[in-house]
Amino acid sequence: MTHGFEPVSAPDALVRAAAVARQAQLTKPAGALGRLEELGNWVAACQSACPPAQFERARVVVFAGDHGVARHGVSAYPSEVTAQMVANILDGGAAVNALAAVAGATVRVVDIAVDADTDPAVSAHKVRRGSGSVDREDALGEDEVRAALDAGRAIADEEIDAGADLLIAGDMGIGNTTPATALIATLTGTEPVAAIGRGTGIDDAGWSRKLAAIRDTMRRIRPVAKQQPVALLRVGGGADIAAITGFLARAAARRTPVVLDGLVVTAAALVAEDLADGAKAWWVAGHRSTEPAHRLALRHLHLEPLLELDMRLGEGSGALTALPLLRAAVAALGEMATFADAGVSTGAETAAPAANLRK
Amino acid sequence: MTHGFEPVSAPDALVRAAAVARQAQLTKPAGALGRLEELGNWVAACQSACPPAQFERARVVVFAGDHGVARHGVSAYPSEVTAQMVANILDGGAAVNALAAVAGATVRVVDIAVDADTDPAVSAHKVRRGSGSVDREDALGEDEVRAALDAGRAIADEEIDAGADLLIAGDMGIGNTTPATALIATLTGTEPVAAIGRGTGIDDAGWSRKLAAIRDTMRRIRPVAKQQPVALLRVGGGADIAAITGFLARAAARRTPVVLDGLVVTAAALVAEDLADGAKAWWVAGHRSTEPAHRLALRHLHLEPLLELDMRLGEGSGALTALPLLRAAVAALGEMATFADAGVSTGAETAAPAANLRK
Repeated sequence: MTHGFEPVSAPDALVRAAAVARQAQLTKPAGALGRLEELGNWVAACQSACPPAQFERARVVVFAGDHGVARHGVSAYPSEVTAQMVANILDGGAAVNALAAVAGATVRVVDIAVDADTDPAVSAHKVRRGSGSVDREDALGEDEVRAALDAGRAIADEEIDAGADLLIAGDMGIGNTTPATALIATLTGTEPVAAIGRGTGIDDAGWSRKLAAIRDTMRRIRPVAKQQPVALLRVGGGADIAAITGFLARAAARRTPVVLDGLVVTAAALVAEDLADGAKAWWVAGHRSTEPAHRLALRHLHLEPLLELDMRLGEGSGALTALPLLRAAVAALGEMATFADAGVSTGAETAAPAANLRK
Repeated sequence: MTHGFEPVSAPDALVRAAAVARQAQLTKPAGALGRLEELGNWVAACQSACPPAQFERARVVVFAGDHGVARHGVSAYPSEVTAQMVANILDGGAAVNALAAVAGATVRVVDIAVDADTDPAVSAHKVRRGSGSVDREDALGEDEVRAALDAGRAIADEEIDAGADLLIAGDMGIGNTTPATALIATLTGTEPVAAIGRGTGIDDAGWSRKLAAIRDTMRRIRPVAKQQPVALLRVGGGADIAAITGFLARAAARRTPVVLDGLVVTAAALVAEDLADGAKAWWVAGHRSTEPAHRLALRHLHLEPLLELDMRLGEGSGALTALPLLRAAVAALGEMATFADAGVSTGAETAAPAANLRK
């Protein structure tokens, strides 16, 4: 417990054991549903209920914020796109809206640090207009990083109090992959060149500028790295990344499962695990994106992604694409008949040579 | 066109091109949804409609059949389980039922060659009671293999005529991975030991018996292999596998997309592609199971699976788990706003240095 973050308890081990035992009674060979079985057992442990209940209020929160570093040619898009995309999400036209609708989730977008005025409906938690350009200045002031962490915690509380039983954090912000990559490279001890990706799709010249920006950022944050997660967010992160960090840590403290999305969210997850030890037990990795730093962060967290579909959009899109796998896992564990119920023979009842059901 | 199979036309290339163009207009970086974009374009081409319509009648047909080879200790379960599982599927208690419900699909089970009397509702297409033990006798007679292929074709027609817009074939049959593995090893030119898997979960002694059975089967079918797909099914396949073959070939001829499932279905798919050249253009591989021969068959068909979750159940379970990815792909292509609609800037409108959106 550091920096005022409450301790994180573990998912329910006894209920997990009950789920494992139930899996062995269901009308399928033991282990035949592979990772769906693990997922179902995890959801049961998170809910302290076996069989677990199907998710009734899966909720995506997209954290929007601009980054000063975008002025320096590290992205294929201009910063104005951040505010335009906030409006697009509010209008229901973004990828997150389409994917949430089909996965049975609802969407909220929050302006944490967009460099423009946005709809009052989304700006209640706004910390500032744009975070600093991390390659040359601190992203945030001392009060601002606290405010951003608190904003994320408050948003998690709002959603959980409103009944959310599964949370997804998404990101939207031109330039946000630059600080996210710098944070991950620093926390995983990786050279910038091995961590950098194309973000929304920069050309070779942009890639070189981004590499330089990440190098400069890493030089700036190295002195505060690891031992001081909050300082790391302040110097080399940004308000949106800090808010996601607070959101993820708070969701874990409130025993609410989370599907992690891509690079930016997983950068925040690395910091959140440092701030709130054990938080990662409440997360599953939805996918692995094409961003090299995303792979590094997932490996560091020992999280094996469910999907690998060459996605690289953010907004929670990868997590939403994986959400149906969790629903499938819950359905299998909760709805399937047992051998006894269905009158189906188990191999174990028969004579050898076929008595050993284990793989 | 061989053996009475009608020619297969290709998905609509013009509509596919329109889908590719539409993807570039949607409010996301070009290519950022990765394989979801390819999937959406494929569905559009299959439907000859851009944007494509969301699937309204996704349908799983589970083909049940027993195999004489199961008497020789190649499975962890006794043959009675096949009929018991048919009843379990009819009662809604199997994995396929739970996974279909959550994926928005409906389930039909058909008895093609169960070695027991089953509910008349599922036995209209029954070919015989159990297929022969392929390690020592032909699976089927000449008339039976024709009847089984025709049964699969008729079932595809019934489903498509009833409005199915997406089809999944599933398998259920104790012992069915032995002929399926032998077929795949033969058609891909693979040594038995590199193709064999644990099926439902045999022990080491069972594995050795299964290996011997696969070797013996391959010796028997080698003379008829490749050039004579129907003879291959007759000598070394089985009625259920032949029915799935007819089903897959007919679905392609009727321009209906299919999500392939695991080992047994993909063995049938290999034969179906031989019988109906070009059929595979109508298929997407739902997952890669833990069965080595499944990997071999997918590689031979040049199909890259959507999921790899260590599943090995059959029943269509892997394909059903992947179905939501197709729904997500259709939703993204159909529901997202374009840059113009949403008033979002494209990088291309801005001055260099950030003009090149391509990765």
